[in-house]
Amino acid sequence: MTKQNGIQQKLVGDTVESFMLIKSVKKGIASNGKPFLSLQLSDRTGEIDAKLWAVSPEDQESYQAGRVVFVNGDIQDFRGMRQLRIRSLRLSVSSDQVKPHDFMPSAPMAPEDMIEEVTQFIFELQNARIQRITRHLFKKHQKAFATAPAAVKNHHEYASGLLYHVVSMLRLGRELSALYPTLDTDLLYSGIILHDMAKVRELSGPLTPEYTVEGKLLGHIPLMITEIDEAAKELQIEGDEVLALQHMILTHHGKPEWGSPKPPMIREAEMLHMIDNIDARMNMLDRALETVPPGQFSERVFPLENRSFYKPDFQS
Amino acid sequence: MTKQNGIQQKLVGDTVESFMLIKSVKKGIASNGKPFLSLQLSDRTGEIDAKLWAVSPEDQESYQAGRVVFVNGDIQDFRGMRQLRIRSLRLSVSSDQVKPHDFMPSAPMAPEDMIEEVTQFIFELQNARIQRITRHLFKKHQKAFATAPAAVKNHHEYASGLLYHVVSMLRLGRELSALYPTLDTDLLYSGIILHDMAKVRELSGPLTPEYTVEGKLLGHIPLMITEIDEAAKELQIEGDEVLALQHMILTHHGKPEWGSPKPPMIREAEMLHMIDNIDARMNMLDRALETVPPGQFSERVFPLENRSFYKPDFQS
Amino acid sequence: MTKQNGIQQKLVGDTVESFMLIKSVKKGIASNGKPFLSLQLSDRTGEIDAKLWAVSPEDQESYQAGRVVFVNGDIQDFRGMRQLRIRSLRLSVSSDQVKPHDFMPSAPMAPEDMIEEVTQFIFELQNARIQRITRHLFKKHQKAFATAPAAVKNHHEYASGLLYHVVSMLRLGRELSALYPTLDTDLLYSGIILHDMAKVRELSGPLTPEYTVEGKLLGHIPLMITEIDEAAKELQIEGDEVLALQHMILTHHGKPEWGSPKPPMIREAEMLHMIDNIDARMNMLDRALETVPPGQFSERVFPLENRSFYKPDFQS
Amino acid sequence: MTKQNGIQQKLVGDTVESFMLIKSVKKGIASNGKPFLSLQLSDRTGEIDAKLWAVSPEDQESYQAGRVVFVNGDIQDFRGMRQLRIRSLRLSVSSDQVKPHDFMPSAPMAPEDMIEEVTQFIFELQNARIQRITRHLFKKHQKAFATAPAAVKNHHEYASGLLYHVVSMLRLGRELSALYPTLDTDLLYSGIILHDMAKVRELSGPLTPEYTVEGKLLGHIPLMITEIDEAAKELQIEGDEVLALQHMILTHHGKPEWGSPKPPMIREAEMLHMIDNIDARMNMLDRALETVPPGQFSERVFPLENRSFYKPDFQS
Amino acid sequence: MTKQNGIQQKLVGDTVESFMLIKSVKKGIASNGKPFLSLQLSDRTGEIDAKLWAVSPEDQESYQAGRVVFVNGDIQDFRGMRQLRIRSLRLSVSSDQVKPHDFMPSAPMAPEDMIEEVTQFIFELQNARIQRITRHLFKKHQKAFATAPAAVKNHHEYASGLLYHVVSMLRLGRELSALYPTLDTDLLYSGIILHDMAKVRELSGPLTPEYTVEGKLLGHIPLMITEIDEAAKELQIEGDEVLALQHMILTHHGKPEWGSPKPPMIREAEMLHMIDNIDARMNMLDRALETVPPGQFSERVFPLENRSFYKPDFQS
Amino acid sequence: MTKQNGIQQKLVGDTVESFMLIKSVKKGIASNGKPFLSLQLSDRTGEIDAKLWAVSPEDQESYQAGRVVFVNGDIQDFRGMRQLRIRSLRLSVSSDQVKPHDFMPSAPMAPEDMIEEVTQFIFELQNARIQRITRHLFKKHQKAFATAPAAVKNHHEYASGLLYHVVSMLRLGRELSALYPTLDTDLLYSGIILHDMAKVRELSGPLTPEYTVEGKLLGHIPLMITEIDEAAKELQIEGDEVLALQHMILTHHGKPEWGSPKPPMIREAEMLHMIDNIDARMNMLDRALETVPPGQFSERVFPLENRSFYKPDFQS
Repeated sequence: MTKQNGIQQKLVGDTVESFMLIKSVKKGIASNGKPFLSLQLSDRTGEIDAKLWAVSPEDQESYQAGRVVFVNGDIQDFRGMRQLRIRSLRLSVSSDQVKPHDFMPSAPMAPEDMIEEVTQFIFELQNARIQRITRHLFKKHQKAFATAPAAVKNHHEYASGLLYHVVSMLRLGRELSALYPTLDTDLLYSGIILHDMAKVRELSGPLTPEYTVEGKLLGHIPLMITEIDEAAKELQIEGDEVLALQHMILTHHGKPEWGSPKPPMIREAEMLHMIDNIDARMNMLDRALETVPPGQFSERVFPLENRSFYKPDFQS
Repeated sequence: MTKQNGIQQKLVGDTVESFMLIKSVKKGIASNGKPFLSLQLSDRTGEIDAKLWAVSPEDQESYQAGRVVFVNGDIQDFRGMRQLRIRSLRLSVSSDQVKPHDFMPSAPMAPEDMIEEVTQFIFELQNARIQRITRHLFKKHQKAFATAPAAVKNHHEYASGLLYHVVSMLRLGRELSALYPTLDTDLLYSGIILHDMAKVRELSGPLTPEYTVEGKLLGHIPLMITEIDEAAKELQIEGDEVLALQHMILTHHGKPEWGSPKPPMIREAEMLHMIDNIDARMNMLDRALETVPPGQFSERVFPLENRSFYKPDFQS
Repeated sequence: MTKQNGIQQKLVGDTVESFMLIKSVKKGIASNGKPFLSLQLSDRTGEIDAKLWAVSPEDQESYQAGRVVFVNGDIQDFRGMRQLRIRSLRLSVSSDQVKPHDFMPSAPMAPEDMIEEVTQFIFELQNARIQRITRHLFKKHQKAFATAPAAVKNHHEYASGLLYHVVSMLRLGRELSALYPTLDTDLLYSGIILHDMAKVRELSGPLTPEYTVEGKLLGHIPLMITEIDEAAKELQIEGDEVLALQHMILTHHGKPEWGSPKPPMIREAEMLHMIDNIDARMNMLDRALETVPPGQFSERVFPLENRSFYKPDFQS
Repeated sequence: MTKQNGIQQKLVGDTVESFMLIKSVKKGIASNGKPFLSLQLSDRTGEIDAKLWAVSPEDQESYQAGRVVFVNGDIQDFRGMRQLRIRSLRLSVSSDQVKPHDFMPSAPMAPEDMIEEVTQFIFELQNARIQRITRHLFKKHQKAFATAPAAVKNHHEYASGLLYHVVSMLRLGRELSALYPTLDTDLLYSGIILHDMAKVRELSGPLTPEYTVEGKLLGHIPLMITEIDEAAKELQIEGDEVLALQHMILTHHGKPEWGSPKPPMIREAEMLHMIDNIDARMNMLDRALETVPPGQFSERVFPLENRSFYKPDFQS
Repeated sequence: MTKQNGIQQKLVGDTVESFMLIKSVKKGIASNGKPFLSLQLSDRTGEIDAKLWAVSPEDQESYQAGRVVFVNGDIQDFRGMRQLRIRSLRLSVSSDQVKPHDFMPSAPMAPEDMIEEVTQFIFELQNARIQRITRHLFKKHQKAFATAPAAVKNHHEYASGLLYHVVSMLRLGRELSALYPTLDTDLLYSGIILHDMAKVRELSGPLTPEYTVEGKLLGHIPLMITEIDEAAKELQIEGDEVLALQHMILTHHGKPEWGSPKPPMIREAEMLHMIDNIDARMNMLDRALETVPPGQFSERVFPLENRSFYKPDFQS
Repeated sequence: MTKQNGIQQKLVGDTVESFMLIKSVKKGIASNGKPFLSLQLSDRTGEIDAKLWAVSPEDQESYQAGRVVFVNGDIQDFRGMRQLRIRSLRLSVSSDQVKPHDFMPSAPMAPEDMIEEVTQFIFELQNARIQRITRHLFKKHQKAFATAPAAVKNHHEYASGLLYHVVSMLRLGRELSALYPTLDTDLLYSGIILHDMAKVRELSGPLTPEYTVEGKLLGHIPLMITEIDEAAKELQIEGDEVLALQHMILTHHGKPEWGSPKPPMIREAEMLHMIDNIDARMNMLDRALETVPPGQFSERVFPLENRSFYKPDFQS
């Protein structure tokens, strides 16, 4: 991964002068009674919160999610988090030759390469029932899967983030299966590929992801269990393979309070949960520490139990 | 309900001399090294734990789950719970003219009357989509539903217990809807009828109920969500009705640690959870207090937070 | 209940132009260093938070709890909750012919009708000891009871809210006793009438309710237990009836962390807790969903575990 | 305290040959189907669990709580706890000249000396209202207080244990008030004297203490709050003193899950809770370590969070 | 302790016109987009939060931690806490003849007197190994110990606060050892002296205390265990004394969630934890109630479980 | 790993006729009053609980921990766990030519090969300070490390289990570092090698491991932190490397309630915790499922949250 230079790399005190995408907008009332906008701005490297004070009705009309703007401002510290103070702002115009898609944070691999890599793993599956179900569902959702984020925030919350998370987990699964040969790679790889697939239904598209109504009322776990049920019915597959795959989906969050009403009761389900955990945590850790100088602590990372991380002075 | 006179009504010190059904058997090794049997015996009124000491290989062969035996013994106290000490025991023979089915604890209403009552509620549903899904699923599982217990133990754990629980809840739902007119009776009644229906897949039959493999690995909540999904697909129904019914199933246990990964987010889902709770608790309370004399405490009731209940001396 | 049209029915974007009562006032310092007032305003239908920015010393003198004001403003969204932005404000004058009492949110039934209904339930009590204690205490506190709110906030937090809550619970108790005939209606009805009665001591009057010192240091549960003790002494009543009523008061919150140091250990105590719960929750749910359009989510409701509720698109 | 030599001082492997009191008896069924008795035996120094195997109906008739027996046996280890294995046993006869009272574990001070010491503290109270209430209640319950245990088990669970606990706490209160002069000794001493006084109602007498019905349904905290209420009414005392004393009773267990629905909100209430804690814990610790040799661990102490304690090898 | 008159004694509504020390500064962005400073100001009696609005770059340059300023302002209420609103502010100049040290909140005893008192306790230690280790470590850290605070905030968070806390605990330990003669005073006194000693490494100096890197990554408990290890190695001491002292350090927070991975398993370790708790709580309580009028409640005290405390009207 | 055939592979119903090592013995009293022995017996493949009933004083003298016996018996089910019922037993004699060491369960790799592999990893460390500390401590404890178990029970609780656990974790660490290149392999490998090293002090030797006194009072985490402190002092090394290694030791259990008073705050510390977790869990899972037939559930595994695991019918 070559060193990037975008919003994710900016430190407190740096200035910003570039095009960015408005990912979300919230209107607020300042404590002087004037309206302001809380914007989430992004470029390819990441996102940042920004405030635009004392906005006019025209401003509120102009600055909406999905538009590209040219921003002048500087990075400030707000309760230990970076925040962009906007000094000036304008909507991009056609002569700027910029498109929203160019400013979406996205995975460091091309979607088509990742699709190819997952497909390769599916080819390797030996158990015919598992392979047919996995292939069927991967094809069914492939298009949305290619660009879906893995989350609204926290980890892999960028375009193709879901696919990138799956690819990393598959690689991890391959190494772990070499070290622990009792693991059933058919079940493990299929579980990895399918575990979060229903996020394509739980979340709206990659540009400005939000929870859908079925996402809120049911969540991706029950949605995916019904997807597997439908696939099995359609392919006329029955047996423990269907049950085991549904169990892996049901239990991959590990605990009731994290959304899995049953704990893992199959070896590969236990491993799936751990692999998911490792990949998500390493992704967040790397982001948190990327711009921290040696001998310093990072910003607090909420989903990592709100910890702040230290980079020892002998690391770079 | 006329006063019953069976095993459920026996107190410590009473003697027992009657036919009973063996619901389950476990072999143990006494601390003198000799094998013994832990039996769960039942008649129509209820169940009791019993011990048969120093058994021969023939005894182990004879006394198996599902058989009817003639028992002589007396009720003793074991750590605050009633236990039957067996003095003598024999297998029933054909001339006894007894059948296992006669000794199964079962609901105080006839299954056919209850089926009729539920059917009546289904007729009353106004929303066509909800009615069609409910009717379809009730028909599909009606036969098993007629005899299924609501649980392996705790509450309504007898033949037709599930149906009896549903009928009580429907009546309760009708009264509550009269008092709180904002309740949508279509959604509430349908939710009551469907909420535990997949217990017919989670548990094996009424004679000696146990968890099935899919019951252990998935549980009745995910199983029922896929049942609704299939029904809707088959009946070509789409829309919020399907989603709302699935949400009611998903959330009817109320909390993640009780098996519902999402909390109720629809008015009728919140009410379904409370109705389920009231009916289960009243059922357990009534059983616990049935034979307690005024001015005394009951045995501890494990699923009621292991409490012991007091019957004031002015109650009978 | 006819459709109301007051502050409770206003949606984000609506304008307000009407008389309202100031229920409470807090002074704050805006982040520009200027004082502002956080007002809680009410009319008969409900309450709303409002902000008055950049206030003068005269404003602070004028706008005090208990006064009626004429307000011009509009409803805005503040972190998912409605908030009234005041554009102009003036104190009511005598020619306006408005009284504070007219702008207090209050129960949808007249206090005298509710007193009558409770009295009717007391007449029906069969157990003489329970009846005498209940009648004695109801008479003793009847005047305050007629107007007391059930809480400072959350549910039934309006004039006569306590009495309305009791009446609803009595009706619910009647229906449940019909469905579960083992319930002792004497104990249940008396427990319902007395359970929160000491809130007339825990909270100050209905206009601007606050916790009293004895409310903070002891709370309504121990206060009511001593009230029953005193009544029994005065009426020279002894026996399990006194103990059972005190136990019902002590345990009606259900759990230590909710304020009941003992769990319910009498059948009617368990039922009292569940009835209290149902009525409080239905009250809050109805308020939360009242103005939500079909297919939308409500504001978050803090005492309902901070959930947001969905109104399916087939409901109105 | 001179070194004692009784059952409390016996170690695993020691033999026992002495008169002891039967504090409680439970009948059990051994896993060979024969009845046995679980006895709790005591002498002045303490108690021990004992088993009598294969008992006859005559044995069950003879060996009842409250009788004195002559025991031959030896101390064995049972899951890390001492247990007395009885080799032979006989009821005491009149010629033995032993009385149950002589074998009750009891406080190391004479009750009359402790009554005298508490009375002295009451004389020192300056606040007339607090003094009158305290004196009134102490006189009312003095007789039962003189012999009551502080608990059924755990700490100070012997005759006059409650009084001894109070005396120790008063001494501790005196020293702490010298070190922290802001403490109000009137409130603190009175709170110490009254805090557990209603245990004379919660528990039956000292010989074989058990929970009473009002002890189980209400507990000593609500009972004592009503006692203070009655005393104040009778003495025509009103004001913050009554409220503060009731608050100290209500909160002295410190947390909801330990039985106090409100936390301490008065300085002396906070201190009362800590003094209670220290004295109870030191009492249990001293008992647990009394017979442990240097360099060894004690038995596990259940109410001290089931910990086992180490006596360093340089201690004796 | 003579009545003080400084910032700690100021009530809401009072004005302030005096020199104060800036203990810490944080820059913020007001919701009108302008920078402001959150200052923590102190004099000998205590600290207060203050806000300086709409600051210039020069202000930000001038007002830094460690400088003395002359402040004009008044005390306001902010969410139940006192806050100083600054009306004007200037840096002190040499002609003011004020030094930062004069405005540090500090213990009510002179450090040299406290050092003397601790030394006296060390002289009294009878166990030579314990005495040598204690003396060695006390000498090693004496200089920093003389001025160190016991915490960044909460209790004893002022200059010499750590030493004052130790002295109070030693006195308390002396009285408790008189009442509970089984306590080993050598172990207890040494444990008290050493228990928080490594706070001199965990926190930076008294003027503006902050956590050091080793304080954050290891904390004072592991740091002190290694200090004892080193001292024992250097003094060539081995045996249970070293182990017991390390155990006391390890366990003095009492529970895993409070920072002690093991619970106290030695009598004196259990007592150390309780003494630490009493002294810290009394210190916070006294501060919270100092300026509260009789019949009123204090501000909420966060480390005392966020409780507000009541001063009964008969106390002064 | 070739298929083994020993006690670990025996199923309920199998007979046993072989030499085994007595790992531990506890004397108990059966409920018929007769003494019995609870033995833990082992061979190379694993352990099993066994009961010897009605033992004579000679038996108690003969059958002690550390001796080899010839056993005749059969495997029974006791509450879902395998138990060996002994039919006959004799001590081994010299002519049997068996040694205790041959019957110790032990790691599937030779200790010398594992020492060699760890040494290789130490050679690869680039950071000189980390390498010197690691090498120093590995040499210091190498002898005990070669045979130490990783625990008294649960996972890797056999001879050389600690070393085997470290080797597996190092291999896992190598693969993860390849997938997540930001990981500092120096810190990670050193943390893996050192993390549990002080278990050689926490537990007694491999034959019959028990907790030592310092193991109970301090535990391996604080012991290892002082070991690193001593090593650094001896090697005159200072700096963040020492602190980072101590932090990794302190935090490797992840949470306070699992024994780490601080959470991981360095990237490699977080990873160390996850690697430790994976290897321990896979080790327990493999053991639990080894003898389970396809389509069946395993025994419950207490340290895996008491779960029972299912082997799908398509796995072998």
